Amino acid sequence: MSISKKYESVAVSSRIRLARNFADYPFPARLLRDAHAEEQAQEIIQLVSAKLVGLDAFALYEMKNLSDERAAFFMERNLISRDLISNRRISAALILRDESMSVMINEEDHIRAQYFMRGFDLEKAYERISGIDDAISESIPFAYDDTFGYLTACPTNLGTGLRASVMLFLPALSRRGLMRRISPDLTRLGLTVRGALGEGSGAEGDLFQISNEITLGDSEGDILRKVGRTVSTVVEFEIRERDRMKAEEGLALKDKVMRSYGVLTNACRMDLKEFSVRISDVKLGVALGYFKTEEADESLTELDDLFVEMRPANINRLNGAPLAKEEQDEYRAEYASIKLRKMQLKA
Amino acid sequence: MSISKKYESVAVSSRIRLARNFADYPFPARLLRDAHAEEQAQEIIQLVSAKLVGLDAFALYEMKNLSDERAAFFMERNLISRDLISNRRISAALILRDESMSVMINEEDHIRAQYFMRGFDLEKAYERISGIDDAISESIPFAYDDTFGYLTACPTNLGTGLRASVMLFLPALSRRGLMRRISPDLTRLGLTVRGALGEGSGAEGDLFQISNEITLGDSEGDILRKVGRTVSTVVEFEIRERDRMKAEEGLALKDKVMRSYGVLTNACRMDLKEFSVRISDVKLGVALGYFKTEEADESLTELDDLFVEMRPANINRLNGAPLAKEEQDEYRAEYASIKLRKMQLKA
Repeated sequence: MSISKKYESVAVSSRIRLARNFADYPFPARLLRDAHAEEQAQEIIQLVSAKLVGLDAFALYEMKNLSDERAAFFMERNLISRDLISNRRISAALILRDESMSVMINEEDHIRAQYFMRGFDLEKAYERISGIDDAISESIPFAYDDTFGYLTACPTNLGTGLRASVMLFLPALSRRGLMRRISPDLTRLGLTVRGALGEGSGAEGDLFQISNEITLGDSEGDILRKVGRTVSTVVEFEIRERDRMKAEEGLALKDKVMRSYGVLTNACRMDLKEFSVRISDVKLGVALGYFKTEEADESLTELDDLFVEMRPANINRLNGAPLAKEEQDEYRAEYASIKLRKMQLKA
Repeated sequence: MSISKKYESVAVSSRIRLARNFADYPFPARLLRDAHAEEQAQEIIQLVSAKLVGLDAFALYEMKNLSDERAAFFMERNLISRDLISNRRISAALILRDESMSVMINEEDHIRAQYFMRGFDLEKAYERISGIDDAISESIPFAYDDTFGYLTACPTNLGTGLRASVMLFLPALSRRGLMRRISPDLTRLGLTVRGALGEGSGAEGDLFQISNEITLGDSEGDILRKVGRTVSTVVEFEIRERDRMKAEEGLALKDKVMRSYGVLTNACRMDLKEFSVRISDVKLGVALGYFKTEEADESLTELDDLFVEMRPANINRLNGAPLAKEEQDEYRAEYASIKLRKMQLKA
């Protein structure tokens, strides 16, 4: 695997999120409390969506009209947040058809716009979201303070309102107990490392997000560079540790990977927890070259997609109707088995 | 699966063994103790082999010339016994090329002749071994007493010297804790149930042998009928219990079977203990119709053969040179994976 391919096998995706509020409207927390504010909330949704739908292939989802199932589906795909669902009465989401962009309206802030891309390129991601930012501000003035910058509901988002995060696949660091060594360094830099699904989630599938914790005081460029540099360091640390792991654990590691592949392609039912572990084993196996595949990076992308598709609400959506937990476990086993066999990973 | 096929998926093989001693020679225990008796022992080997080699494609193995490796190989294939190896100085084995018959010379008795066949047909097996018995007695008179019948070193073999045993695959009875219920009934009938590899062995691969414990007092026909009837009862008990197990455990059972198949076809190393369990899972799966295979009975036979081939000395022989334990585990995983994939069992 080339260096850049190795990089890609660690840095799965990049995400930039901007928090913005409008100067002429009360913050969402106020809108929620005030029974008469629904009209104002609706006005914000209309203004923003009118602007963006003209710009790109955005679809508008008003949260009050969205089923719990569909909301859970979007949340599992990182397109909306738990807070957006809580604010259902006044909130909405604009989601780009290819899911690379979502703009949450009346979440904690009036606007939470995020751009998501595969691989590791924060500058490009930032450029993309800036276009949206500019477009919105053309029609509706943002709440901005010369001292504090963009005003936000929570002080951690004050200033640039920018959060840059990179999703990393860190099986070697995680399994060899080295994540604990990384966290303090990140904290010192004003960065944070979280499980794949955001705050409070475990590191399912050995996926971690590194992002900036503070948005005030640093410029946008500073934040992107700081997160970027740190991610590069962690990626190199992971790559070194994978090589060490492969050398030290040898056939024991390959055996573990191949058994997980065998179970994934043959089991009749599998819960999400086991699936996370086994898919991570197989991804690690692809990254370490245990499988004869010419397109390792493509395989990794497919496995990442599968990891999202096999979450509960995503399974329900694939199935076309909600399933009980046991039925989901069966669906997951069968679907994953078919997908994996099609990938033709050969030992 | 038809009734007779179901029968075959339980009753793996039948074995008839005759114990005989020659009237004009001291018993093997005496031959061993007496330093001058080696000539007599050699004489017995010569006489018996001269007779049998002319009769069929027997190969003579004098135990003193046999390597430990080769002896272990034959023992794993149930062609010779531990006692024959202990008596190495004076003992020999005549083994038919297709391994269906072996005649141990100077084991506990002068002659221990056994015929082995797939499936369940004790009458046929007895007929076959009787021919050998008659041929030997033509040239060398047996030690026979009008009251006790054939004289043997151990009183349990006195009389007919006949042991009829059937190897049974009993995963349902074994896993559902029902073997304990069978044992007392067998004891009352003068029969016994043992693990696959004879006295003191565990029931690896859910394989059990049912055989008569006592040979005195009953005629040959009585023994064959008694063992035969009991085996039929146990086979039917197992078939009923498999159906019950399939109905009660449902997908959990199929999942277990398919996972074992997945691990067997993908693992990079596997010890004998795990292999025994997993191959038993797959055999049960074939018997229960979990795999799309038109020749279920052929698959079961192949799996039974594989079970023998994957024992340590058999692996060494396949490899062409002795392997360390860890190397055997790797060889086993790779060999079994290839064999199983060739069988094209499809879920």
